[in-house]
Amino acid sequence: MKTKVVVLGAGLIGKPLAIDLAKDEKFEITVADKNWQQLENISEACIGKKHLDLRETYELKKFIQPFDLVVNAVPGFMGYDTLKTVIEAGKDCVDIAFYPEDVFGLSELAKAKAVRVISDMGVAPGMSNLLTGFAASKMDEVEIVDIFVGGLPRIRKLPWEYKAVFSPADVLEEYTRPARLVENGKIVTKPPLTEIELLDFEGVGTLEAFNSDGLRSLMFTIKAKNMREKTLRYPGYVEKIKFLAENGFFDTEKLNFNEQAVSPLEMTSRLLFKQWKLEEGEEDLTIMKIMVKGKKEGQTLRYTFDLYDQYDTETKTHSMARTTAYAASQAVRLMFSGLHSEKGIIVPEQLGGNEKIVDFMLSGLAKRNVIYKTTLEKG
Amino acid sequence: MKTKVVVLGAGLIGKPLAIDLAKDEKFEITVADKNWQQLENISEACIGKKHLDLRETYELKKFIQPFDLVVNAVPGFMGYDTLKTVIEAGKDCVDIAFYPEDVFGLSELAKAKAVRVISDMGVAPGMSNLLTGFAASKMDEVEIVDIFVGGLPRIRKLPWEYKAVFSPADVLEEYTRPARLVENGKIVTKPPLTEIELLDFEGVGTLEAFNSDGLRSLMFTIKAKNMREKTLRYPGYVEKIKFLAENGFFDTEKLNFNEQAVSPLEMTSRLLFKQWKLEEGEEDLTIMKIMVKGKKEGQTLRYTFDLYDQYDTETKTHSMARTTAYAASQAVRLMFSGLHSEKGIIVPEQLGGNEKIVDFMLSGLAKRNVIYKTTLEKG
Repeated sequence: MKTKVVVLGAGLIGKPLAIDLAKDEKFEITVADKNWQQLENISEACIGKKHLDLRETYELKKFIQPFDLVVNAVPGFMGYDTLKTVIEAGKDCVDIAFYPEDVFGLSELAKAKAVRVISDMGVAPGMSNLLTGFAASKMDEVEIVDIFVGGLPRIRKLPWEYKAVFSPADVLEEYTRPARLVENGKIVTKPPLTEIELLDFEGVGTLEAFNSDGLRSLMFTIKAKNMREKTLRYPGYVEKIKFLAENGFFDTEKLNFNEQAVSPLEMTSRLLFKQWKLEEGEEDLTIMKIMVKGKKEGQTLRYTFDLYDQYDTETKTHSMARTTAYAASQAVRLMFSGLHSEKGIIVPEQLGGNEKIVDFMLSGLAKRNVIYKTTLEKG
Repeated sequence: MKTKVVVLGAGLIGKPLAIDLAKDEKFEITVADKNWQQLENISEACIGKKHLDLRETYELKKFIQPFDLVVNAVPGFMGYDTLKTVIEAGKDCVDIAFYPEDVFGLSELAKAKAVRVISDMGVAPGMSNLLTGFAASKMDEVEIVDIFVGGLPRIRKLPWEYKAVFSPADVLEEYTRPARLVENGKIVTKPPLTEIELLDFEGVGTLEAFNSDGLRSLMFTIKAKNMREKTLRYPGYVEKIKFLAENGFFDTEKLNFNEQAVSPLEMTSRLLFKQWKLEEGEEDLTIMKIMVKGKKEGQTLRYTFDLYDQYDTETKTHSMARTTAYAASQAVRLMFSGLHSEKGIIVPEQLGGNEKIVDFMLSGLAKRNVIYKTTLEKG
């Protein structure tokens, strides 16, 4: 009998994730979404479809009962509540909803329900955490963790040279939220968009890296002297974002116009949506570099993990979707591999100490042509 | 007995204009405005004040009856209707309301009422027209008229290095309206903000000049082969304006946000108001260069008029206000000088052919330290 998996959310990540799992004979896949159009976009005959408002807790809990595992791929704003419902229903879960709430708030509940949850299991957060956790597990002390990551269009068009699979509101949120990083063992807060540096990436050229608030659980789970995540864009991008910020275009307080009240950010999100929408068939790239430096028995170790991923012209799948969705789909396979049995909430860096799991993840991704290059320098 | 002059509008131009005229023993000055605060800002005891909604045609007509001359210094949107009322009341007028309508639409009415009107009598339009008309009157044929003009803050602060005494909505309107200019004797339309060139100005440095729709009546009154007006800003300004335009921030169509509807331009005007407001005491400059080239009896003549004007630290009057208001106040004196008697609507270039009037205007402005330097090259 096949393993029954349900994917909640048939969006830009949920769709390729479901299709990837459905290719596996072992799985029987169902996708649930409130949006008919999203469901219809999935043409694979072997994938079951369920039209359901996933915010209806009672209905959702009933619906997921027959499944062996749930993938939480709903939009961030409803991600935490959805995960809570899944745990209450007693279902194992791979979670890539990337909500702002702290997932460890559900730890006790997950343990009480004897449920396994792998949370934040995309590319970054996700593989960035797993690989950082892996490198850290090889060291007595971690000195530096540097994560550089960005999704970019292959064809650069001014003024932005930028496209996103995410909503502009979510992207802009990253640019307005202070960036938390670790300096001298302490969590410090810096303004977003600061400490810009230019870095060269093979096959891409020079990119601009700036502070963003992307470390999430790594800040608390990995003991490092210095740790930061920076976002990558084509050079000149930050100056434009800052220009809008300086002029108040990201302000969230509503302004009154006669009887009408709208915030600058609402207006800006609407306008940039047109500029930033990654269209179907528009090629994109995902670039990530993770550098972890530390000491093992007095010797300096330096791990570097490089990802360069492109749009898949054959399946017409965006790179930003591929790198996120296939990390999650491989985590679904991990759940049934016998390699991971721990109950409760787990974030990927907590799996990184298990080399078999890391190999399982990297080889599964490599099969789907998402290739992480690992370099270890000693000395 | 004193000559009774009423200034309609006690704003940034009306106020210094009234104060300047009130210093003249010959005049008795009254200022009318709907806004109490604006009236109270004028502390000169000798200036009469009238609180009146100037859009109330009947009231306005009655109120201006005792005056010998009216200065129309109301905001542009109500300028044309106000001038019409003044003419209907049979009053001579100096008009600096700079409305979008064609003032010559009131020519017949003005002649029928035997009223003298000098319209568009500021710095540009205004002195730019007068001096172009003067130079053109010295030539058999005019080849080139180039007008470069800009009001700028003395202290340059990024990102804009720009401040205005006008509302951002009016400024932005200049950047979205196609620019009309004359090429090979024909009026042509070009996109605004185009044909950027860098020019050096003494005491200021390098400025950026771009096409703007500022020729107004000159297009029709002066027969020239090539004629254009360009706006001056500190370099880099246009790129930022274009960036906002490209991203839709100047769009006038309202967008819906839940029940609320606001246009991007409304939002942008509101945000830039904070950025661009020329504060009290903040020093500004007015820079203008007019170049008129043509032929007289086979000989090439080239007139250049240069204006460099600064904020008046003594009277705390902005340069943009000084250069506009004192041109108009001198035109008021012109009306009682015996030099100008023609009935109907007159624009300044039509006065430029009379050298005595030009001298009268330039010497009056020079007395107020607004100095136009005239250069004539022959060859």
